[in-house]
Amino acid sequence: MVDIATRVHNHNWKIDPIVRSLIDTDFYKLLMCQSIFRNSPDTTVVFSLINRSKSVRLGELIDEGELREQLDHVRGLSLSRGESTWLRGNTFYGKRQMFRPDFMEWFEGMRLPPYHLEKIDGQYELTFEGKWPEVMLWEIPALAVLMELRSRAVLKDMGKFELQVLYARAMARLWEKVERLRGIEGLKLADFGTRRRHSFLWQDWAVQALQEGLPEAFIGTSNCKIAMKRDIEAIGTNAHELPMVYAALADSDAALAQAPYKVLADWHEEHDGNLRIILPDTYGTEGFLRNAPDWLSTWTGIRIDSGDPAVGAENAIRWWNERGEDPRQKLVIFSDGLDVDKIEELHRQFTGRVKVSFGWGTLLTNDFNGLAGDRLAPFSLVCKAVSADGRPTVKLSDNPNKAMGPADEIARYKRIFGVGDQVAREVVV
Amino acid sequence: MVDIATRVHNHNWKIDPIVRSLIDTDFYKLLMCQSIFRNSPDTTVVFSLINRSKSVRLGELIDEGELREQLDHVRGLSLSRGESTWLRGNTFYGKRQMFRPDFMEWFEGMRLPPYHLEKIDGQYELTFEGKWPEVMLWEIPALAVLMELRSRAVLKDMGKFELQVLYARAMARLWEKVERLRGIEGLKLADFGTRRRHSFLWQDWAVQALQEGLPEAFIGTSNCKIAMKRDIEAIGTNAHELPMVYAALADSDAALAQAPYKVLADWHEEHDGNLRIILPDTYGTEGFLRNAPDWLSTWTGIRIDSGDPAVGAENAIRWWNERGEDPRQKLVIFSDGLDVDKIEELHRQFTGRVKVSFGWGTLLTNDFNGLAGDRLAPFSLVCKAVSADGRPTVKLSDNPNKAMGPADEIARYKRIFGVGDQVAREVVV
Repeated sequence: MVDIATRVHNHNWKIDPIVRSLIDTDFYKLLMCQSIFRNSPDTTVVFSLINRSKSVRLGELIDEGELREQLDHVRGLSLSRGESTWLRGNTFYGKRQMFRPDFMEWFEGMRLPPYHLEKIDGQYELTFEGKWPEVMLWEIPALAVLMELRSRAVLKDMGKFELQVLYARAMARLWEKVERLRGIEGLKLADFGTRRRHSFLWQDWAVQALQEGLPEAFIGTSNCKIAMKRDIEAIGTNAHELPMVYAALADSDAALAQAPYKVLADWHEEHDGNLRIILPDTYGTEGFLRNAPDWLSTWTGIRIDSGDPAVGAENAIRWWNERGEDPRQKLVIFSDGLDVDKIEELHRQFTGRVKVSFGWGTLLTNDFNGLAGDRLAPFSLVCKAVSADGRPTVKLSDNPNKAMGPADEIARYKRIFGVGDQVAREVVV
Repeated sequence: MVDIATRVHNHNWKIDPIVRSLIDTDFYKLLMCQSIFRNSPDTTVVFSLINRSKSVRLGELIDEGELREQLDHVRGLSLSRGESTWLRGNTFYGKRQMFRPDFMEWFEGMRLPPYHLEKIDGQYELTFEGKWPEVMLWEIPALAVLMELRSRAVLKDMGKFELQVLYARAMARLWEKVERLRGIEGLKLADFGTRRRHSFLWQDWAVQALQEGLPEAFIGTSNCKIAMKRDIEAIGTNAHELPMVYAALADSDAALAQAPYKVLADWHEEHDGNLRIILPDTYGTEGFLRNAPDWLSTWTGIRIDSGDPAVGAENAIRWWNERGEDPRQKLVIFSDGLDVDKIEELHRQFTGRVKVSFGWGTLLTNDFNGLAGDRLAPFSLVCKAVSADGRPTVKLSDNPNKAMGPADEIARYKRIFGVGDQVAREVVV
């Protein structure tokens, strides 16, 4: 029987919204937001979309009117009662009331600030300016909207069965990965693929496939909406934007050198246990670890997000040993450009020496490479803080291809953080 | 919105019926049924299920109670008004009123006769006895029920996503075939896969995929229900059961030798054009063509259903040339164990020399080999007339592995039809 009301209701949608919830975002954005809401509520920032894959000409692929409609829809979103209840009542990382009442009250009233959009030379310039705790919440929905509009643009001309087969192939491909991962004893992995997903529905499918296919290994998703919907753990801690903004605001070279540790000192006050995960690569992992205060070595673990992951993990192990910590009690989270081969390799190399975990991103939620030629291949889109209170931000990373900021500032940061020669690695996703 | 009525209605189904319509059958069964209804309405026959793949132990895989429920459901079916309208009003092979009013009236009142079911040594013995025009209509639903119950038995323990991925893989596999077939210029093919399909829904999906993927090449389906549902051509002419029963009823060796031609003489009276397709292999193609009356060489084409298909087609071409016919005006339909490689090869070899067409069966509608180990691999199940008015039937075929009947009768037939040494070919499906 056709449900006539549903059919008619569907006619009433003006668009098919890509982001339908403020918590269709990464868990660490909310954790960081709460931290920023407490520590730096009045800092003004500019976030900007950066398409590192110049060959993907988003300005030609995506209709500007459709993009504006989607972004406007996101601006109209507010936290629903059920979402608020879930954030307030849920246990995250074993902790009740992770989100404080004052933050929740603010979040319930929060709407995303305006965006600025221009099409220049076949690309979109999309920026967001305003208070840090508000602007930073644009990052994930902006990326998700652009990624999915690109998918829709490519899929627009395909027939019904061609589409079905496309998804059939993507499903078969993902399931082959699941079957290979089943063979890895003691594996722990989470979905980190929100930002560069093919689409919301596809990420949701991928998560469910992992739930069924890897019931032991799959520990949760970074996506709050999907965690809520599928009743699984929300996963994530903190990201580069914290040290980048703290660093930009530093008033002297000495303050700059301390900025990354100031971030973690603030975090240390707020969080314990598995939320104490060091992200060391913003200005070079080597110098970061060398100059780190002792209390940091007591933290639970480290996240390796750029550079050669095996080198990064070996450095962390050496550092823990030097500081008298037992690496076997420490957690190493790999989260950079992973796919099954790399997961197998890293798991083999580090299991038994540290606790190993994987944050699997784009190649979980957007491995459509080759399924429509290269027209659906994932590409490297980011949305980053580019300035704070009028000062430019800088990221060095352990991969010079991921560095960003004005050249003279990059030079100054390199000097202050003692970053020497780095090995460039291709940024795939 | 959940349609509550639909949900509740679904609770009312006692079983999920496999065959839901009397025209969920091959078109040629209805054409032959009408012919038999006119020429031999009172002949009694026994049809019997024969599982040529002994390793597939249907008696252990399939619950007898479920099998009885499904067969009982088929016995309860009658022609719906819409189906009757479609059969009466449609144009088949360019002809209006293909089905005569007296046949339609009989068919509307027809119910399938009782079945006899026993489980012996891990296999089912399933037989149907009664008037030929009724019993012969059991063939396709009986096969479809057993094939699909076997599929269901294998799929029963699989998880939701495992199932989805299984079908995703099957879809991707079929679409790869479609994409390869797209490259064959002038290709014509039809779905002949009802009898050994994985399931009704899968056959329906495969047909729709061919409709979209091969809009020029795909000319129709043998399945009347799907032809009606998808608004495409119903395809088919006649099969071995006609010569087998005519031969069994022959009262002398001379009459036996003429039986296959008598079948086609009756057919000649009823049909013209593209329905005049010779099926020459029941008692050996070579002898059949050698001894054929001249009027047969004026028929539109030939169907090659056993033996080496290239040899069969070459023999037909030589025969037409000998009889002064132009092979380029003749149609050769290949219908035995086809898949893409074979289709490509035969198309290449015969295009330009004859009109070529393909009836693609089991490897279109049931290529699940390897998708659940070999547990879903297609297997060779047939349902054949084994006796007529108490006399055993015999089939020789161009492949001795497809021969059937009592040994002494096979020897007599071989003598009378002058069948010498034959090359055995593996019967895959």
